[in-house]
Amino acid sequence: MNYKAPRGTVDILPTDSGKWLKLERILRTIADNYNVKEMRTPIFEHTELFNRAVGDTTDVVTKEMYSFNDKKGRSITLRPEGTAGIARAYVENKMYAWPEKLTKVYYMGPMFRYERPQSGRQRQFHQFGVEMLGVESPYVDVECMLMALTVVKALDIKDVTLHINSLGDDASREAYRTALKDHFRPHLHELCEDCNDRFEKNPLRILDCKVDHDHPSMATAPKTIDYLSEGAKAHFDKVCQLLDELDVDYVIDTNLVRGLDYYSHTVFELISDDPKLGAGSTVGGGGRYNGLVEEVGGPATPGVGFAFGMERLMLAMDDEMNEDAGIDAYIMPLGDDAKDYAMQLITILRAHGFCCDMDFVGRGLKGQFKSSDRFHAKYALIIGDDEVKNEIVQVRDNETKEQEAVKVEELIAYLDQKMGV
Amino acid sequence: MNYKAPRGTVDILPTDSGKWLKLERILRTIADNYNVKEMRTPIFEHTELFNRAVGDTTDVVTKEMYSFNDKKGRSITLRPEGTAGIARAYVENKMYAWPEKLTKVYYMGPMFRYERPQSGRQRQFHQFGVEMLGVESPYVDVECMLMALTVVKALDIKDVTLHINSLGDDASREAYRTALKDHFRPHLHELCEDCNDRFEKNPLRILDCKVDHDHPSMATAPKTIDYLSEGAKAHFDKVCQLLDELDVDYVIDTNLVRGLDYYSHTVFELISDDPKLGAGSTVGGGGRYNGLVEEVGGPATPGVGFAFGMERLMLAMDDEMNEDAGIDAYIMPLGDDAKDYAMQLITILRAHGFCCDMDFVGRGLKGQFKSSDRFHAKYALIIGDDEVKNEIVQVRDNETKEQEAVKVEELIAYLDQKMGV
Repeated sequence: MNYKAPRGTVDILPTDSGKWLKLERILRTIADNYNVKEMRTPIFEHTELFNRAVGDTTDVVTKEMYSFNDKKGRSITLRPEGTAGIARAYVENKMYAWPEKLTKVYYMGPMFRYERPQSGRQRQFHQFGVEMLGVESPYVDVECMLMALTVVKALDIKDVTLHINSLGDDASREAYRTALKDHFRPHLHELCEDCNDRFEKNPLRILDCKVDHDHPSMATAPKTIDYLSEGAKAHFDKVCQLLDELDVDYVIDTNLVRGLDYYSHTVFELISDDPKLGAGSTVGGGGRYNGLVEEVGGPATPGVGFAFGMERLMLAMDDEMNEDAGIDAYIMPLGDDAKDYAMQLITILRAHGFCCDMDFVGRGLKGQFKSSDRFHAKYALIIGDDEVKNEIVQVRDNETKEQEAVKVEELIAYLDQKMGV
Repeated sequence: MNYKAPRGTVDILPTDSGKWLKLERILRTIADNYNVKEMRTPIFEHTELFNRAVGDTTDVVTKEMYSFNDKKGRSITLRPEGTAGIARAYVENKMYAWPEKLTKVYYMGPMFRYERPQSGRQRQFHQFGVEMLGVESPYVDVECMLMALTVVKALDIKDVTLHINSLGDDASREAYRTALKDHFRPHLHELCEDCNDRFEKNPLRILDCKVDHDHPSMATAPKTIDYLSEGAKAHFDKVCQLLDELDVDYVIDTNLVRGLDYYSHTVFELISDDPKLGAGSTVGGGGRYNGLVEEVGGPATPGVGFAFGMERLMLAMDDEMNEDAGIDAYIMPLGDDAKDYAMQLITILRAHGFCCDMDFVGRGLKGQFKSSDRFHAKYALIIGDDEVKNEIVQVRDNETKEQEAVKVEELIAYLDQKMGV
């Protein structure tokens, strides 16, 4: 019988994991740079959390969740995104009462959506996300945007534009909702069934519709930015002013509404024309979600965050960005005695911090040299019967091709000196 | 409404993640040291894979799997362990045909078993595991054991003993199976229902029974080691000889059979009496599984591996082992103008690689100093109205408590020099 990975999932092979490790290291370094600490929530949560937090009219919740009943009949869902779990954990662990009022955390890991698998969209995908909870301030919105921009810069993603918009506070959103319904009401019979459904439940979703995307009423729809309350406008103006002062280029994109229910005030996306991604690709985005923590049972707590799809970042990264530096030494035993001897030698070398491997197959010199090359070993250490008898090792510098016989007791010092440790 | 993490799962809070990161970094460094590359398989697999690979008479498969049907009705299971997925991926990606005959990989991540949650046992837990596939050699068994021992040494886990045993090859196991059935047959009526079931399906499992653990027939049961074929005995003798040559202490533990079906030949466990874990705690273990790759549809391929429960490793690690080194500078703006100025300054400092944070709350000096302390900032950079006007920053060394006014354009050079960059 043949077993395959489930549809929409992929294996990350040993030949590819170095690039993932590099990406993760870059992201963690940026997190340190911004004093953002990692937080990890479970892979699955109670289904109601996502219904409530992400919104039960969104595509994510209505169509794409991996939900199932556990053995006690409770509905459990593999997390489709990271923010809901962080908000739940923030409340459950009473982090709102921690002495530091602003909590800045990141998460990194697998997420799950039951979508039709297509290029760049998997059912198990990976996100890096940041959440900043506890302080309602345009400065924190900008802190998020700066950090997101630092990510695309560090990964050398080309032609990135920061798009921003404001959805406003509750009052702004209510006024906008009414305007939107007035606008779409005469066109309802021309719009798809889903849009008719959204019209009552959540008219903002109509703007996201993939089916009616080109309907003329879309282009003339009212803009959130024209319905902002005074406070919401002041918040957004301050965000723009700070970006100006910091010489950050941005575009006010009045069509930007984001796909999840929990956003309010500032929303933003990073859109790239990098040829590796294709023109107009969204590489990351986020926004403010002031209602979310209260929604999941906590005290009213402002929040803002963003997330990147890591598969997208991997696509945009150069393949040369890789953690795999090659090994220090490849030990090449010839014959059975040499093999036992090699095992002792490799143990000593590793204990001294050298990254080493040896032949376990029992091949001849030629086959072993091929492995030494494949592992990009700096040195090949050759051991035959004579070397065992005389307690020496033939040390070959794989770059210069020079070879020297070195006494075993001097080997560590010899390699230290050669490698400039 | 209040939402809780699902039973048996835990949140890793920003205050605790530094220790996890440290553990992961140590494990990755050891993997580099042994030339073992990371491999990542999906969080879930088709259920049949685990039935086949782990064995459908094991507790893991019969009682503890998180299985559910996806929207197309296919049974999917959250992985209860890591080896089956690696074996499936090895076959599906035809890694047996790769030029390097011995494939050495590690995995690190969440696993899921529906068990009664108890101290140190979670439903979502984490494993670090290593698999070495493609070469049937006692040297590779020892390579695994050495690597596992390097892990416990690096984490400074106390009083660890290496226990080893051999289950032998197919012929040995068949002979042993018969002997075991002959031994237990007269006692069947005294043993639990599960054991009666195991008697027919997989008598080896009886030795693992938690209910009948103290039944007198357990202590007098035949030992696998007395039923080894000639080849299996030679393999095991070579393992012991190599360990002797390497001065590795070990105990031959004839009761060691491990809980999963796929093992053959060498099995081993690291058992610690570290007071942090409690006497006789298994911190990790593994063994050879020569039949597994063929079982999941690949060509006959030997394999050997081991795994550690990461929660157990975390328990044994000192709390001082932590990646959180504190930040370089905490920026303390006093007043609105200073805040905009601080935002520009922090952006420049971060771009130069300094890890920084600033006050986003708008507190006074005292509150801000508290944050500076909590973040273990090396320097506090204080900015009031005068500092903005005169383009200077008050730089306070939080260790010596000395404070100096520094011109903004000289700040980077000043900090570089002070921090010895």
